[in-house]
Amino acid sequence: MDRRTPPDTAEGWYMLHDFRTVDWDAWREAPARRRERALADGVAYLEAAEAVADADSGGSTSVAVLGHEADLCFIHLRPTLSDLNALERRFERTELAAFTEHSDSYVSVTEASGYGGANDYFDPDAEADPGMKRYIESRLHPDIPDADYVSFYPMDKRRDSEYNWYDLPFDERAEHMSSHGDIGKTYAGKVRQIISGSAGLDDHEWGVTLFADDPADIKDLLYEMRFDPSSSKFAEFGRFRIGRQFEPAKLGAYMAG
Amino acid sequence: MDRRTPPDTAEGWYMLHDFRTVDWDAWREAPARRRERALADGVAYLEAAEAVADADSGGSTSVAVLGHEADLCFIHLRPTLSDLNALERRFERTELAAFTEHSDSYVSVTEASGYGGANDYFDPDAEADPGMKRYIESRLHPDIPDADYVSFYPMDKRRDSEYNWYDLPFDERAEHMSSHGDIGKTYAGKVRQIISGSAGLDDHEWGVTLFADDPADIKDLLYEMRFDPSSSKFAEFGRFRIGRQFEPAKLGAYMAG
Amino acid sequence: MDRRTPPDTAEGWYMLHDFRTVDWDAWREAPARRRERALADGVAYLEAAEAVADADSGGSTSVAVLGHEADLCFIHLRPTLSDLNALERRFERTELAAFTEHSDSYVSVTEASGYGGANDYFDPDAEADPGMKRYIESRLHPDIPDADYVSFYPMDKRRDSEYNWYDLPFDERAEHMSSHGDIGKTYAGKVRQIISGSAGLDDHEWGVTLFADDPADIKDLLYEMRFDPSSSKFAEFGRFRIGRQFEPAKLGAYMAG
Amino acid sequence: MDRRTPPDTAEGWYMLHDFRTVDWDAWREAPARRRERALADGVAYLEAAEAVADADSGGSTSVAVLGHEADLCFIHLRPTLSDLNALERRFERTELAAFTEHSDSYVSVTEASGYGGANDYFDPDAEADPGMKRYIESRLHPDIPDADYVSFYPMDKRRDSEYNWYDLPFDERAEHMSSHGDIGKTYAGKVRQIISGSAGLDDHEWGVTLFADDPADIKDLLYEMRFDPSSSKFAEFGRFRIGRQFEPAKLGAYMAG
Amino acid sequence: MDRRTPPDTAEGWYMLHDFRTVDWDAWREAPARRRERALADGVAYLEAAEAVADADSGGSTSVAVLGHEADLCFIHLRPTLSDLNALERRFERTELAAFTEHSDSYVSVTEASGYGGANDYFDPDAEADPGMKRYIESRLHPDIPDADYVSFYPMDKRRDSEYNWYDLPFDERAEHMSSHGDIGKTYAGKVRQIISGSAGLDDHEWGVTLFADDPADIKDLLYEMRFDPSSSKFAEFGRFRIGRQFEPAKLGAYMAG
Repeated sequence: MDRRTPPDTAEGWYMLHDFRTVDWDAWREAPARRRERALADGVAYLEAAEAVADADSGGSTSVAVLGHEADLCFIHLRPTLSDLNALERRFERTELAAFTEHSDSYVSVTEASGYGGANDYFDPDAEADPGMKRYIESRLHPDIPDADYVSFYPMDKRRDSEYNWYDLPFDERAEHMSSHGDIGKTYAGKVRQIISGSAGLDDHEWGVTLFADDPADIKDLLYEMRFDPSSSKFAEFGRFRIGRQFEPAKLGAYMAG
Repeated sequence: MDRRTPPDTAEGWYMLHDFRTVDWDAWREAPARRRERALADGVAYLEAAEAVADADSGGSTSVAVLGHEADLCFIHLRPTLSDLNALERRFERTELAAFTEHSDSYVSVTEASGYGGANDYFDPDAEADPGMKRYIESRLHPDIPDADYVSFYPMDKRRDSEYNWYDLPFDERAEHMSSHGDIGKTYAGKVRQIISGSAGLDDHEWGVTLFADDPADIKDLLYEMRFDPSSSKFAEFGRFRIGRQFEPAKLGAYMAG
Repeated sequence: MDRRTPPDTAEGWYMLHDFRTVDWDAWREAPARRRERALADGVAYLEAAEAVADADSGGSTSVAVLGHEADLCFIHLRPTLSDLNALERRFERTELAAFTEHSDSYVSVTEASGYGGANDYFDPDAEADPGMKRYIESRLHPDIPDADYVSFYPMDKRRDSEYNWYDLPFDERAEHMSSHGDIGKTYAGKVRQIISGSAGLDDHEWGVTLFADDPADIKDLLYEMRFDPSSSKFAEFGRFRIGRQFEPAKLGAYMAG
Repeated sequence: MDRRTPPDTAEGWYMLHDFRTVDWDAWREAPARRRERALADGVAYLEAAEAVADADSGGSTSVAVLGHEADLCFIHLRPTLSDLNALERRFERTELAAFTEHSDSYVSVTEASGYGGANDYFDPDAEADPGMKRYIESRLHPDIPDADYVSFYPMDKRRDSEYNWYDLPFDERAEHMSSHGDIGKTYAGKVRQIISGSAGLDDHEWGVTLFADDPADIKDLLYEMRFDPSSSKFAEFGRFRIGRQFEPAKLGAYMAG
Repeated sequence: MDRRTPPDTAEGWYMLHDFRTVDWDAWREAPARRRERALADGVAYLEAAEAVADADSGGSTSVAVLGHEADLCFIHLRPTLSDLNALERRFERTELAAFTEHSDSYVSVTEASGYGGANDYFDPDAEADPGMKRYIESRLHPDIPDADYVSFYPMDKRRDSEYNWYDLPFDERAEHMSSHGDIGKTYAGKVRQIISGSAGLDDHEWGVTLFADDPADIKDLLYEMRFDPSSSKFAEFGRFRIGRQFEPAKLGAYMAG
């Protein structure tokens, strides 16, 4: 029945994109004292999250999101889904949470796939190249890039009668991934990414989080990739969100407008 | 007019996935006494449900769901739809319900199909293998697996002009199901499932509920299956929800964050 | 330009599926007296509707719906759309309405089509068989079946480039309808149906309302039909809702949980 | 690059379908005096709109809509979009508006196309037939038909790889339009229509508003047309709404239920 | 793997379409003094935005939107996404914001593509024609046209198996763009446009903002373009919004109805 060979995958940290809208009317009208308490709570929550005070390893960051769908996005990377659930719940205990709605979210886990050079990493009989090992490890347990802007979108590979990614032979997929990666490399130093898988965890198959100081680089990268068959023929995109990364201490400035 | 032979099916318990979001603002601001009453009510409801105090047989469990679409999911298995309706209604009488919204749900009935080895089970003239009988019985009246994580998604089989599951000959479908099942078997002990049918009961044709201690096993299983033609060509997936199973007594800890 | 011959159709009563969610929080917290008044109002409304006190002919029934999309569904059959609009409006005058939201609805009219044996009924020059006349009359002005469960879904016939129902020759459609009907007949006594057309009245082309004492019969019927080309190739389904029929006098028991 | 010839079009009045849901709970509980003021305001608004007190020409009418998506629809025809915006805004100044939500709307402009006999009308060198001129003028500046029921739906012409209306040669489209019109003519006196274009104005390409004393005629017309290739192959339909036309003076009776 | 050549692109100002619905009930019932303060705040905000008091360059305008999805749209063009985020936030500090909901938005950046004559502009070895340079500069840093009406819609290029824009050779795409542009030129002086790219910034690939004194010109332009293969075969459109441009000083008149 023509079952195709899946690539090996390795998983690292679980990842939560926790989007919130702010109730600006309530914020504007709240007494200064309550706002101060809310900010103190919020900053403490974000600083503890970024310091990974709640787990052995991971990372967190905060994003001021443009547009009506969200105002804030907290991104958390942690060893378990329970850690993420605890972080999600902990925020609800802050006074700041009273001024927000939980408008969107995405649950995934960092992932590396055994296409191309990464193959040896997954072969128990092969000795993987130490550079490749470090590279894959950096994808599974990434430092959150220190860049001004963050773009997030979920995506799927198509399963149409004409464009069916999952019905392609392994080698063809590997070639696509390699060509796709080649474009990415030309943006090295300009755009960095965290790729996370989400089959069984959320509505799409992957989440992509891009970091760049210049958002036009993100647009250029995505536009260029769209002409590559791995995207033009085989990618289906969900919603796109863009925002500005900020340090916890800047939360007050953000909320002040 | 080329009508295809449907498989025989057997149905067991009706199944309700009852998703709730929590109004965390109201919870945070409620007096301690009211929260205690709500928790006592909630725990009593969940314990009675898990003890199946309301019916002759069945099972229930509670899940803490990640993401913005739901915070809690109560899963109930019972002999009749009326039993499920009563459970749904009974929850609304608890003080806890005042802190929740009924944000999502899925109605289905556990199902076994007469493809492959199960064929004899459905043949009145054949003597079904006792092992097969026990296996099918365990699918229709399942114990809820004791695993840390639960993933739920509804799905349909495609009826495209190219990929039309319902227009395939019986034997071809049986072969697909068998190949599909073979993948599942390689995850034996790691991922357990409850399959329920929902034609005429809810918006999709089936519900799938997966249980695993390691959610990466769920992701790996689904990803691997996506390369099998039964999924790559013939499956259409709805929303995916993931959460952590918890005992009723832990409700207070969950609500406390 | 290849215009295809439509079947003759006859229309009977207009049909409203009026879905309501209940605000259980408000209900739980309402004073007993207010709840009693609301129940008295609700029962009186439903009894008058079922007695067709407002029109010369028709029928009404009440359904307790499972899942989050609706809690109650009132189904009304009446000679005119104005009758239905009046019933919809009249409910809003009851005290019970204050505890409900109008969450969903479907507007249609009972319909019989001149495919197969029904052809003569529509032929002014033919003398229709008295049995057929009675059968068609019973489809246009149906008694609401006295069965425990009710399933409702809207549907369309496909107009794809490959599967275009409206581009099939009349005889081919008649054959499909006959094959489709043959499956239905094997469920005689177990599942009864009301078919209503809704082109120009609501978002889909037809509404289907199924009645059965055992909801598994509804699932089995729909599943079996899905393998018939009239469904597998030509049917597109909307949402599915299932519930339990109840007598007006039982409204209090339902609301009590 | 195979650009196809568009038909000439003429535009007349801009058209707003302004759908409102009524907050029946607020209405039921409002003091009689406030309801009277709201009704007086509402009737005055509707009478002024129908008298076209705000512009040189046009027309307005009111519809009691069935189902949960809307309770009222105000249809306005006016020389400019600014006129429509003013009417939309003016309603918000009435006391009645406090009892409504603006749940849906459609913005379009009456349109006539130069297919078939209408061709000469658009040809600067041809002398159009006076009857044709009157006919086109009546489509651009229509009297709102005095019929009991009104059905509204937006629609698009398909641009599929197989069924691409915009890639058909002009003559083929003209033939389709003529065949389509022939069906309409068989309903003359039973169903009247206002066709309005909305490219760039709202989400679909056209709005269709049908008027009939018997809603079954609307259903029959649409069903019959669905077998004509102009619909079966080339039409994509949006939502459908049906309601009963009423005179401003009857607003109180409608609100009373 | 058949990667196609993307065009060069240049980006100019970031662009925010910030749609708001007005809570007319709250507005109607607010004390005159509060309304005056809200208007004063709103006018000051809009005047400062149009004067680009917050950045070195850019532009802003206000639109009164028809229909239920939005009442107001503020369009901002600025050098950075942070500038836009600040403007979005600043509005929330006005008293006027308390009367609005943030119902919709679109984030993009003005874009010019190196198809056709613009090619030289992007060629580091070529000397671009000064007229072309000025033209491209005017697209990247546009004056907001002084026209009565504004239409906005997002769009994508299709990636179907039959109509796949991103799989066309460069020259074919260039020819399509040129043919598309030729239609636009016939509307010179009647319809002006701002084209902005949004890959990675929002849900679609481009935003199109059209300006015209006569909205029928917008409809005619879009309808005519729909017969051009660049649209008929390769364009997928999102929502369409239309409104009337107004000066900040007219805000009071608009809110008064």
